[in-house]
Amino acid sequence: MAQKIYVEELKKHLNKEIISEFLVTQKDLREGTKDFYIRLTLADKTGSLPGNVWNNAKVIAEKFNEGDVIQVKGVVISYKTQIQLTVNKIIRLEPEECDLADFMEATDKDINKLSDKLFKYIDGINNNYLKELLLTIFEDKEFYTAFAKAPAAKSWHHNYLGGLLEHTVSVTTICDFMSVQYPVDRDLLITGGILHDIGKVFEYEVKANIEFSVIGRLVGHIPLADQYVSQKAATINNFPSELLMKIRHLILAHHGEYEKASARLPQTLEAVALHHADNMDAQTVGVIQITQKMQKDGAVWSEFDRLNNRYYYLK
Amino acid sequence: MAQKIYVEELKKHLNKEIISEFLVTQKDLREGTKDFYIRLTLADKTGSLPGNVWNNAKVIAEKFNEGDVIQVKGVVISYKTQIQLTVNKIIRLEPEECDLADFMEATDKDINKLSDKLFKYIDGINNNYLKELLLTIFEDKEFYTAFAKAPAAKSWHHNYLGGLLEHTVSVTTICDFMSVQYPVDRDLLITGGILHDIGKVFEYEVKANIEFSVIGRLVGHIPLADQYVSQKAATINNFPSELLMKIRHLILAHHGEYEKASARLPQTLEAVALHHADNMDAQTVGVIQITQKMQKDGAVWSEFDRLNNRYYYLK
Amino acid sequence: MAQKIYVEELKKHLNKEIISEFLVTQKDLREGTKDFYIRLTLADKTGSLPGNVWNNAKVIAEKFNEGDVIQVKGVVISYKTQIQLTVNKIIRLEPEECDLADFMEATDKDINKLSDKLFKYIDGINNNYLKELLLTIFEDKEFYTAFAKAPAAKSWHHNYLGGLLEHTVSVTTICDFMSVQYPVDRDLLITGGILHDIGKVFEYEVKANIEFSVIGRLVGHIPLADQYVSQKAATINNFPSELLMKIRHLILAHHGEYEKASARLPQTLEAVALHHADNMDAQTVGVIQITQKMQKDGAVWSEFDRLNNRYYYLK
Amino acid sequence: MAQKIYVEELKKHLNKEIISEFLVTQKDLREGTKDFYIRLTLADKTGSLPGNVWNNAKVIAEKFNEGDVIQVKGVVISYKTQIQLTVNKIIRLEPEECDLADFMEATDKDINKLSDKLFKYIDGINNNYLKELLLTIFEDKEFYTAFAKAPAAKSWHHNYLGGLLEHTVSVTTICDFMSVQYPVDRDLLITGGILHDIGKVFEYEVKANIEFSVIGRLVGHIPLADQYVSQKAATINNFPSELLMKIRHLILAHHGEYEKASARLPQTLEAVALHHADNMDAQTVGVIQITQKMQKDGAVWSEFDRLNNRYYYLK
Amino acid sequence: MAQKIYVEELKKHLNKEIISEFLVTQKDLREGTKDFYIRLTLADKTGSLPGNVWNNAKVIAEKFNEGDVIQVKGVVISYKTQIQLTVNKIIRLEPEECDLADFMEATDKDINKLSDKLFKYIDGINNNYLKELLLTIFEDKEFYTAFAKAPAAKSWHHNYLGGLLEHTVSVTTICDFMSVQYPVDRDLLITGGILHDIGKVFEYEVKANIEFSVIGRLVGHIPLADQYVSQKAATINNFPSELLMKIRHLILAHHGEYEKASARLPQTLEAVALHHADNMDAQTVGVIQITQKMQKDGAVWSEFDRLNNRYYYLK
Amino acid sequence: MAQKIYVEELKKHLNKEIISEFLVTQKDLREGTKDFYIRLTLADKTGSLPGNVWNNAKVIAEKFNEGDVIQVKGVVISYKTQIQLTVNKIIRLEPEECDLADFMEATDKDINKLSDKLFKYIDGINNNYLKELLLTIFEDKEFYTAFAKAPAAKSWHHNYLGGLLEHTVSVTTICDFMSVQYPVDRDLLITGGILHDIGKVFEYEVKANIEFSVIGRLVGHIPLADQYVSQKAATINNFPSELLMKIRHLILAHHGEYEKASARLPQTLEAVALHHADNMDAQTVGVIQITQKMQKDGAVWSEFDRLNNRYYYLK
Repeated sequence: MAQKIYVEELKKHLNKEIISEFLVTQKDLREGTKDFYIRLTLADKTGSLPGNVWNNAKVIAEKFNEGDVIQVKGVVISYKTQIQLTVNKIIRLEPEECDLADFMEATDKDINKLSDKLFKYIDGINNNYLKELLLTIFEDKEFYTAFAKAPAAKSWHHNYLGGLLEHTVSVTTICDFMSVQYPVDRDLLITGGILHDIGKVFEYEVKANIEFSVIGRLVGHIPLADQYVSQKAATINNFPSELLMKIRHLILAHHGEYEKASARLPQTLEAVALHHADNMDAQTVGVIQITQKMQKDGAVWSEFDRLNNRYYYLK
Repeated sequence: MAQKIYVEELKKHLNKEIISEFLVTQKDLREGTKDFYIRLTLADKTGSLPGNVWNNAKVIAEKFNEGDVIQVKGVVISYKTQIQLTVNKIIRLEPEECDLADFMEATDKDINKLSDKLFKYIDGINNNYLKELLLTIFEDKEFYTAFAKAPAAKSWHHNYLGGLLEHTVSVTTICDFMSVQYPVDRDLLITGGILHDIGKVFEYEVKANIEFSVIGRLVGHIPLADQYVSQKAATINNFPSELLMKIRHLILAHHGEYEKASARLPQTLEAVALHHADNMDAQTVGVIQITQKMQKDGAVWSEFDRLNNRYYYLK
Repeated sequence: MAQKIYVEELKKHLNKEIISEFLVTQKDLREGTKDFYIRLTLADKTGSLPGNVWNNAKVIAEKFNEGDVIQVKGVVISYKTQIQLTVNKIIRLEPEECDLADFMEATDKDINKLSDKLFKYIDGINNNYLKELLLTIFEDKEFYTAFAKAPAAKSWHHNYLGGLLEHTVSVTTICDFMSVQYPVDRDLLITGGILHDIGKVFEYEVKANIEFSVIGRLVGHIPLADQYVSQKAATINNFPSELLMKIRHLILAHHGEYEKASARLPQTLEAVALHHADNMDAQTVGVIQITQKMQKDGAVWSEFDRLNNRYYYLK
Repeated sequence: MAQKIYVEELKKHLNKEIISEFLVTQKDLREGTKDFYIRLTLADKTGSLPGNVWNNAKVIAEKFNEGDVIQVKGVVISYKTQIQLTVNKIIRLEPEECDLADFMEATDKDINKLSDKLFKYIDGINNNYLKELLLTIFEDKEFYTAFAKAPAAKSWHHNYLGGLLEHTVSVTTICDFMSVQYPVDRDLLITGGILHDIGKVFEYEVKANIEFSVIGRLVGHIPLADQYVSQKAATINNFPSELLMKIRHLILAHHGEYEKASARLPQTLEAVALHHADNMDAQTVGVIQITQKMQKDGAVWSEFDRLNNRYYYLK
Repeated sequence: MAQKIYVEELKKHLNKEIISEFLVTQKDLREGTKDFYIRLTLADKTGSLPGNVWNNAKVIAEKFNEGDVIQVKGVVISYKTQIQLTVNKIIRLEPEECDLADFMEATDKDINKLSDKLFKYIDGINNNYLKELLLTIFEDKEFYTAFAKAPAAKSWHHNYLGGLLEHTVSVTTICDFMSVQYPVDRDLLITGGILHDIGKVFEYEVKANIEFSVIGRLVGHIPLADQYVSQKAATINNFPSELLMKIRHLILAHHGEYEKASARLPQTLEAVALHHADNMDAQTVGVIQITQKMQKDGAVWSEFDRLNNRYYYLK
Repeated sequence: MAQKIYVEELKKHLNKEIISEFLVTQKDLREGTKDFYIRLTLADKTGSLPGNVWNNAKVIAEKFNEGDVIQVKGVVISYKTQIQLTVNKIIRLEPEECDLADFMEATDKDINKLSDKLFKYIDGINNNYLKELLLTIFEDKEFYTAFAKAPAAKSWHHNYLGGLLEHTVSVTTICDFMSVQYPVDRDLLITGGILHDIGKVFEYEVKANIEFSVIGRLVGHIPLADQYVSQKAATINNFPSELLMKIRHLILAHHGEYEKASARLPQTLEAVALHHADNMDAQTVGVIQITQKMQKDGAVWSEFDRLNNRYYYLK
């Protein structure tokens, strides 16, 4: 496949024909005065622009949907001072034919180093049942591939490829730190840090953007993790039921409050600790994401953060 | 075993020795001026009274705990106008040796009729997967015995033996009614009505009183039901994953709001309907329990209902 | 009057002159570069479109207001791919000159059958005072005409012509069902179901759309019903004051919580029951309205329901 | 009737027989070791003490209830350092036979001066309809007697005899002040100040203590005032419906927020003003009551005010 | 400087060149098809309009920022029926070169009369420490100039030049009134009324619009006032620490509730009183501002007040 | 002074005369049947017991108050199986005459090591202004003595002698950890960690128990710290105002939410981080205190934690 041309580079190709891949975020078949046409919004991780398909619109419109990645052949034009694309040809791509990293932000951390850290934490666990449970889960190649790619959110913190792995390692690092500061059961807390959000592997559908899966909305990442971990524990000989109950509690209570959709309130010291570790990382990284983007612009204040009802000072 | 003498009958035995069974709700080994003695609170479903063990207290105190049912031999006395028991001998009973109905309130409905209704609802389901799932669960004798005995709550509505069965049949009856009124998927809604609270079988420990089990507190009846139903569905050939997801959603969302510890918000019409059926029965029966007890006293107003911040008018 | 041409049919009349009636939802007299013109939004129950009055705008603008229904003579044109109306002549219609059903959604239930059901419920009441009260209210022709036409809301559930009657019958049916399930005073509960929302007859002004009346906003349907019912009861010989007080309580408390603008908290068993009957019907039908509209489009998820903070799954 | 002896004076009569009147706040018929006896709590506005009826208890217990005022003949004794009354004879008194001011706190303001102020405000109203409405209400002797005696609350602010009149005059004075500061309709606001709480005349039953009446709990003072005022307005020729609507709105909205059981939100400038006048007086006087009582003790901090979650500094 | 031409007057100058001063509320340097141009929004207190700089855009764009007032030379044109300005020359003005009253609303009260009232209240204080503290603060010319110009808010009530002085005098007048009604320490309450919002002098930056200053957002007007008053008190010989503590409490607690960003809850009678005085004035004037603007239009209802979740009736 | 005898040791001295020091937590002068007597509750960190002064009560009662530490000479007796003290002589002690550690719990950490850690963190700060500010504050001997002794709370977490120092070091350690994990300004965050709670030095009065000081209640530890730090910064040459503003923000915003009495919302990355560090330590240690006390008893569940609405599992 030819080198991808990013949205932000298109103005260099004004009035020329290009071939590139874009995510379709909007698709409208409209009736014009003479004929039907398709109005598109095409995007990649550097931005988005309008596109129009003037010929054969009805037939072409059948070939793809919003959310698909398409290969486009078209001419870059300028209309009312705005860059647009007059599209002549469209080929729909399968997910495996395109590089997600072209369309979505990804962690700027090194995935391999994050994986190494994760497995080192697993390796450092003394309780054999817990270590076997973690290895059973994370040595499953198919699962791990999905896990390492998954975002930790659709919006707010870590909402990018690899965000789940990054967040998991970061929370586990905080748990490790806390196990030195406070009289907690270190093995249990580290296990909780590693497992608390694994349900997010199933909660999102990551094609060229992040969407909730149907089961993600109807069941949610907390019961999904609860069930996944229980099933894996059931495959281990004599896994102590008391220990499994404590791990389930860590997962079910990690959101901390019912108002924040926690399935339980934290009722063990480790569940309290895990909740604070998770919250610290999520909130801090959320604010870092907001403020770093703005700092590049030289602004004094961030845009208004509706979720938290405030502006952030950037100087 | 001799005929049980209830707490409310003891005054007829003043200054006589009796033998009867009581639940120990309080046990205090205290140091008196001369020797140790045990201060007890003994209870059955008709009331409670104090008891004292004056002789051999240290040894006897080892034999039983709060929450146990004991057979007591002792003398009924009157102290400062209050009936008490001077206890001379104590035998700890195993749960299976005593009749729970002596110690706890039970539903005044006919258990067999409730069971018949339940199975009739199961029988009326058209979808074979759903019917098989329900039969797999409810034809398990051991499970059904626990289910038919379980309360639906520790306090508030249906907090008595058989309360869970009574509440389940009542909610299912409302679901049946709703399926005539509204364009819902009847099979799904009936299934949801039947299954929504089965986690409560595991949430409470019913000995001679109702207590939360450890797993009841740490995992809770909603994830417990979610998992129990998922495991049973896994034993059925080709159980459709879409259908299982919808049932799980019914269970996970039936509390309706995060603030009320719901694991999900109702996102299907059936989940909305089930939440209202459950809420209607729970709240209405809760108020019936409060007001009926008071009406016997001829009072005009109930006692203050702290949970709901009001009095009830009884005339 | 000629056959109404609906908004959704206008494209068939492109570039032709038509005569039809529309509701004016927006009216702007604007100063153009040469002369004043009027920019309109015209609507009926099938949709809306822009219209322009280019000639004699200042004079014509005096003749009607937003909220009026007007008869329009004009040419259907296409401007930037969008259908518009170039309006040449306008006649303002009196409410009684136009058919509300052209402009607003109406219940798809049969009004006569709903009325029959309502009167059958009244007929089944044993308490003569209650029956006489209900007949006094509902046999008043003028009142009943308004009642049978009224919506039950401006937005959310039953927000269409006949919605109040439909909702009233549905809530009363639930009350009837509950009176079999629970030890309630059936006559009282049925009366409450029938009367609880009658204040809405005065709360809305239904012209060609639904608006709050001034008294609807300043006094509200709950005190309006409280007063209407009290006045009617005062016309009945020896109507028991205790009974009136209970009915007033049913009306005043039916919203259930102060936060939801209830004037009282439910403090009788019947008031608790009525609140749940009302809430069940309102919420369930609200979700049915949202999901049925979407299901026609073949969507998987509904649009976001801001009021309830969720999407609904449509499959 | 002989001079009343107050609870706080009883210690001067130790071991002597006295005759005096007390409010019965608790009455328990108990079975003693030999015979039945009655355990009483007797109170007046200076305090309370225990009393016992040892002879003929079963018969005497039939003669009065909690909430009654009784004339007692008995001996003042000291038991475990505490003053008690051994009661030998009891006569139940009718409300009109006793002086409420012996049993309940009363305003320390002069009732006649408060009444004068109230009627001066009525006199100063220019709008004849409003003036006539107010005179119709307040020149009704029976109503005014009840009004001038009524408390404004059961607990919190102005919870004493005459409290409603005192609060009404105070709120009206604030309204008068506001009508100079702000561009409000003075006649309307003064009328609102005078009428806003008149429903409290019916909300409480004032015998020898303050209790909610049944209609006070089931209908509440806001709808009671709404209806009372509407009925009185209906007796006035041509009372403008727009004006009545505005007065009703003032009454219905004066609590300001739904959470505080307001039937409407304030939607006119006068309703906003009235709410603030009412709130200012209620809260300020509430705190004055708490702090003045404590200041007599020389304490630095008041007791904890649970309702408002704070202590008050008294220096 | 030539006479200012206001935005609402520009249509009289259609197709003519004008010179006037405007506030820049938006500035966008855009790349056109041929060259860069600047897209502006220009405003004064009578409205706003778009402006375009077509020539030398890159250089001119360096000379000023959003929030600046500029002197503009340009031609008034009409584009798509809308008035615009084609800007030919721009001179940035220093704040002291322009009259803020051209760009912002100002109080319609007489500033001198308000000042007189304020100083009369100060003069009427008996406690010499309090009087000296107030004089130390308000006789500082630089401070007073800023104080008399400051708004009391960015949006909602008193959000105009002089609004802080107007609000301060109004709240102090209410405090004066309350000191007659209630047994408060008048000197203290008057002092609290005068000082409670002085932190707003530092909270806003008033150039040609109202913006929060950085310290206004990060520290806030309450701690700013707390510190300013404490520093001034420290310059007075032997200022009693108990008295300073009470003043600080008045400032820190005047928002009344933590949810409304109060630093303390009111714990003295004067703090309770001040909170109600402040709230009464802020809320009443807020509604007056909303309703007066609308009443000029002859509307029946105000626009929706999102902050308070209601419409206001204007008749 | 003789060796202190603790409350828990008194039973060994039954019927003997002892001399020891106790905190008076309750003092009641009561009128007995013959004479006045004083009823006391006497306490130290091991428990409390009743005491009685039978002779010369009126005179002795003048000599001390609740909250004082007194030296007591008296006889240990047993009354109704309970240990009491018959007090014969009382000497009131000045705070400096008694060892607080006898009456209150204290941190089990080594104070000197905590101090070393604190000064090492100060030493590691690169910004000279911040380092000088911290040294100015913490090298003040009188301040440091109070700081090292102060508790961090009256109830909940770290409510013991030295708790403030322990909590400060712990929060600073978390800040140090976070400065490695996240792109924060380390010097600023460490300074925030050290200073955030120093207002608590003035918020509590620590005599032989922990009480809020008057200024602690009326001004609170957040404005107290804000002012203390500002005053100290003012003594440093050219302390940058921008830097001071950021430190003030850290202090004012560290409670995180208005509902939790924060004076500001965190609006810088460091303020967000500090809030989470503070919260993590406070909540985790709060739960550790609850659970550790219970674990000694061998209980399965802690007592109910009302503040957080839950039990904790102790196994």
